[in-house]
Amino acid sequence: MGFDMKDVKIITKKIQQFRDERDWLQFHDAKNMAVSIIIEAAELLEHFQWKTKDEVEHYISTNKSEVQDEIADIAIYLFELADNLGIDLIKAMEEKIEKNSKKYPVSKAKGKHTKYTKL
Amino acid sequence: MGFDMKDVKIITKKIQQFRDERDWLQFHDAKNMAVSIIIEAAELLEHFQWKTKDEVEHYISTNKSEVQDEIADIAIYLFELADNLGIDLIKAMEEKIEKNSKKYPVSKAKGKHTKYTKL
Amino acid sequence: MGFDMKDVKIITKKIQQFRDERDWLQFHDAKNMAVSIIIEAAELLEHFQWKTKDEVEHYISTNKSEVQDEIADIAIYLFELADNLGIDLIKAMEEKIEKNSKKYPVSKAKGKHTKYTKL
Amino acid sequence: MGFDMKDVKIITKKIQQFRDERDWLQFHDAKNMAVSIIIEAAELLEHFQWKTKDEVEHYISTNKSEVQDEIADIAIYLFELADNLGIDLIKAMEEKIEKNSKKYPVSKAKGKHTKYTKL
Repeated sequence: MGFDMKDVKIITKKIQQFRDERDWLQFHDAKNMAVSIIIEAAELLEHFQWKTKDEVEHYISTNKSEVQDEIADIAIYLFELADNLGIDLIKAMEEKIEKNSKKYPVSKAKGKHTKYTKL
Repeated sequence: MGFDMKDVKIITKKIQQFRDERDWLQFHDAKNMAVSIIIEAAELLEHFQWKTKDEVEHYISTNKSEVQDEIADIAIYLFELADNLGIDLIKAMEEKIEKNSKKYPVSKAKGKHTKYTKL
Repeated sequence: MGFDMKDVKIITKKIQQFRDERDWLQFHDAKNMAVSIIIEAAELLEHFQWKTKDEVEHYISTNKSEVQDEIADIAIYLFELADNLGIDLIKAMEEKIEKNSKKYPVSKAKGKHTKYTKL
Repeated sequence: MGFDMKDVKIITKKIQQFRDERDWLQFHDAKNMAVSIIIEAAELLEHFQWKTKDEVEHYISTNKSEVQDEIADIAIYLFELADNLGIDLIKAMEEKIEKNSKKYPVSKAKGKHTKYTKL
């Protein structure tokens, strides 16, 4: 496993290159990108529609590459949107995990899926 | 730019640590994760609801940290889900960009937002 | 219970009146309406986030009016959108049930949640 | 216009009949229904993905029946869910319009798409 392949910056460059070769930046305003992210999120969810937890597990084990592609589709739009807005995605995630740690203190949230507003 | 802060693996570890301190893995099956991703995607989209392109741009410039947090929320769930399923997210994105390049050849797709099924 | 209160046309008129008193038709193009429908659908889903089937049932029994309001929010946008596009919603539903009957013949679909493309 | 065809109760009966002939009630808990509603909402939105307001209008005029079917799909799940929960959908809409009237007083909300929390 090479380091370079892991870098968020390198994959973001590939996304930009794919987009710019097709002259698609003109369509990629933030609202259209958010719309596309939710459409892809629904396509991921559709794989699990009506299924129980066990059925989902079995489905994923036999349809791994379809599920992987849906996850990638969401990520591709998300990485581009972050970059378009000048957001360092990894830094944003770190900061949000910090905030979440305060919203969901271990002592209160452990073992519970209660929303922080009701903790 | 520090390498460590950029690494998808490091942020994924932080997500796992946050989750495991709270004993939340029990709730994080793939269907529940996909549900959470789409809920967060809707929260991002809600910031842009009813707004024109110009209004969205202005809104983002004055509400950057709220938008950043929504993007981070989606990413946090997405990175964890990929990891839970044994998917290397960056590799999945690279493979998907490859597939997209074939679905949307530059010669046909340039300057157009037509879906590949109708190209 | 009066018949009039049941009529889709009457409730659609009330929706229009509410909208027009606020001069909101200018924002209600089909894309913005579809965005609003999915945002409301996510708010409904959020009530059930992370919950098991039993937890959802209990939650609804103790939070009926919140759930009812979310369902109403989706319906209000959906009825208006159909009307804006000159679509008779009830007729559209009848026609779609007809189509679904062909896509999902009882003999093949009974007791299974398989998508018609895989039946 | 026949009255019978307009009635929410009659179409709800048809939905139930379609469902029960296929023995699908076992899959139709509230969470699964909410998941299905958002998946259908995304399919509606996908028709408008990347398109400008003018392009959406043109698209609808030439793809009316596809758009109509997507709207119907959302409605079919929504009507069934309301009924499953013992909610009178039309009454729920009326009550929600009442609440919205208070959240968005004409004097404050006219001509503006600001969320009530920021009015």
